[in-house]
Amino acid sequence: MFNEDMYKIGAKGSDIRELFEYGKRRKLEIGDDKVFDFSIGNPSVPSPSVVNETLIDLIQNVEPTKLHGYTSASGDNYVKSEIANYINNKYNANVSKDLIYMTCGAAASLSITFKALLNPNDEVIVIAPYFPEYKVFVENAFGKIVVVNSKLPSFLPDFDDLENKINENTKAVIINSPNNPTGVVYGKDVIEELASVLKKKEKELGTNIYLVSDEPYRELVYGDAIVPFITNYYHNSIVCYSFSKSLSLPGERIGYILVNSECVEAIKLYKTICGAGRSMGFVCAPALFQYMVPKCLGYTSDINVYKENRDILYKELTSYGYEVVKPEGAFYLFIKSLDEDSYAFSEFAKKYELLLVPSDSFGVKGYIRISYCVSRKQIVDSLPSFKKLIEDYNK
Amino acid sequence: MFNEDMYKIGAKGSDIRELFEYGKRRKLEIGDDKVFDFSIGNPSVPSPSVVNETLIDLIQNVEPTKLHGYTSASGDNYVKSEIANYINNKYNANVSKDLIYMTCGAAASLSITFKALLNPNDEVIVIAPYFPEYKVFVENAFGKIVVVNSKLPSFLPDFDDLENKINENTKAVIINSPNNPTGVVYGKDVIEELASVLKKKEKELGTNIYLVSDEPYRELVYGDAIVPFITNYYHNSIVCYSFSKSLSLPGERIGYILVNSECVEAIKLYKTICGAGRSMGFVCAPALFQYMVPKCLGYTSDINVYKENRDILYKELTSYGYEVVKPEGAFYLFIKSLDEDSYAFSEFAKKYELLLVPSDSFGVKGYIRISYCVSRKQIVDSLPSFKKLIEDYNK
Repeated sequence: MFNEDMYKIGAKGSDIRELFEYGKRRKLEIGDDKVFDFSIGNPSVPSPSVVNETLIDLIQNVEPTKLHGYTSASGDNYVKSEIANYINNKYNANVSKDLIYMTCGAAASLSITFKALLNPNDEVIVIAPYFPEYKVFVENAFGKIVVVNSKLPSFLPDFDDLENKINENTKAVIINSPNNPTGVVYGKDVIEELASVLKKKEKELGTNIYLVSDEPYRELVYGDAIVPFITNYYHNSIVCYSFSKSLSLPGERIGYILVNSECVEAIKLYKTICGAGRSMGFVCAPALFQYMVPKCLGYTSDINVYKENRDILYKELTSYGYEVVKPEGAFYLFIKSLDEDSYAFSEFAKKYELLLVPSDSFGVKGYIRISYCVSRKQIVDSLPSFKKLIEDYNK
Repeated sequence: MFNEDMYKIGAKGSDIRELFEYGKRRKLEIGDDKVFDFSIGNPSVPSPSVVNETLIDLIQNVEPTKLHGYTSASGDNYVKSEIANYINNKYNANVSKDLIYMTCGAAASLSITFKALLNPNDEVIVIAPYFPEYKVFVENAFGKIVVVNSKLPSFLPDFDDLENKINENTKAVIINSPNNPTGVVYGKDVIEELASVLKKKEKELGTNIYLVSDEPYRELVYGDAIVPFITNYYHNSIVCYSFSKSLSLPGERIGYILVNSECVEAIKLYKTICGAGRSMGFVCAPALFQYMVPKCLGYTSDINVYKENRDILYKELTSYGYEVVKPEGAFYLFIKSLDEDSYAFSEFAKKYELLLVPSDSFGVKGYIRISYCVSRKQIVDSLPSFKKLIEDYNK
């Protein structure tokens, strides 16, 4: 009677959200500090102080009807120009404020982008493991996901597989670096090889293939890793950015879509994005948080905390015998499941109050994902449980 | 190459937004106070002080990772329970917090609701004149708009026409009271007659017909007008609410969907709504503004300012010879166009720097809409222009 596709998406929930809700219930039962919830990427490091300072300054000093009023549907012009300036300075890029569309976060950026790009049955390539919501957003636009494998153990794209799977129906390729769930960062060489494959196939097929770069974790890199800015490498590229993770405000829903000015028909694409946003009821991105952005560009939460979490977990879990991909960015560990069936393993881990996300919905079997954007206390307190879990499993 | 439907929606823009953008450009050319922009419903009365006080209190006193973190996808549980309590007390209703879904404002409420309710080619009845975005949101869900007439001069629904146009494909009827663009309020008698027609047709056809009540202007009523709470009158009802107008924060995007617990398959419908929101990339409504809501329930901006704007405009415009529907709520005047072609009239009015929205996109010809949520100064300063406009036209 209702829309059955929407019912299925709503009734099932995502594996991540299901586990997160289970965790909330379980904490009520046995206490917050007894449940080791590694399910969701909810930043545990507070926003840099500039965030709240700027919010208070805006609230106290900007005329309320201006501050809380509608902005243009694509976002406030000054905000967009500050973002463009920041990017151009930082990455030596050449992006235009007029091709930036402010959004309610990365999920909105992606759903709007696919709604604009795709016609029914167009194909979108994702590289496994991939964030499960990509499938939801692509299918909302009546496109089809095509899964390309990663090479092991690097979890970098398998370019032969990519080349084989691109055909005349391929409208877009999504990348996500630093990656959720592996934490892998695609360096300059990888991006150059990717761009070269896409250009070659565009020429061969006579089509346009859009590279959609999902970048909520751009600033969350550890050590020497560098995240190349995609518009400098590939013409038909679109950046889907969010401030959720860099500024620790995932609940506030603020991000943007950036269309590379070198895209074929860039202005038409931008207008189509405006139409897609309007069509789905995104009137404008939250105004207060738009106005916050210019003052906060270049700031991040203290990512050293995540790095230390990573270092502790990586060291200890590998010492217990877990097989772990060492992440260079984001705040996830991708761990080989002890059971071939990662759902079964995730269920088993609940015995030790460990909430671990099975990898199946990321498009690969046999792993679990840990979000280590949690308190240091949770990291440290959970270690004996991880140890008992592997000992119990190996019995 | 891109999605042509989305391109059309994005390239055209809405008549309202186009005029609003024209006004912004024109103000840069000749000065803010020289352009009489009556295009958009951007509240001119500041938020009640409780809004900014609550925001600052939350920012200063709630732990930032909690304040700015993800809420549950359907919204924070405490926020939802406070909304349900408020409604139940105020309207003697029986709504459940578990059937409230927090959204990014009324546009999101509507687009999500239709995406959940509709299957391709389902029909949704709107009563002309109607808010033009209804068509966009219904078509986003592949439904079809069916237009029912209002009776003149009351602009209340023509129930005979409604009865005639309901058939086995009719999935929903949208009402909007206080109404944009007429300002008309549907009283108890009207709602009772509407409910009775829908129940009769449900029985006759053996279908469910959902009444979707779009209520951004619920609190904006003048004099004795009362807006009945729809769940008390009709079982299959859904409220799409927004705090944009009552609290003067349309840019912040905060509202909710409320499914009547007496709906047939209410829980399934609610889950379908959750799925539709997820599918389009609405992760959660902005967290800070969710947490603001409980403290602000029952407050409104000073609506007396709008009432006085209405009174001045109504008195003066009618004295100049304009034919105007006297509004009981919202902040719009619906005025008979001096030219049969209201687009031509809207263009002509630009000569006097008056930005008036033609009625065609509201589904009726021959009127123009004025948003009188503007400064008193603009109202007063514009009067000579309105006078000259009609004199010029009648020459």
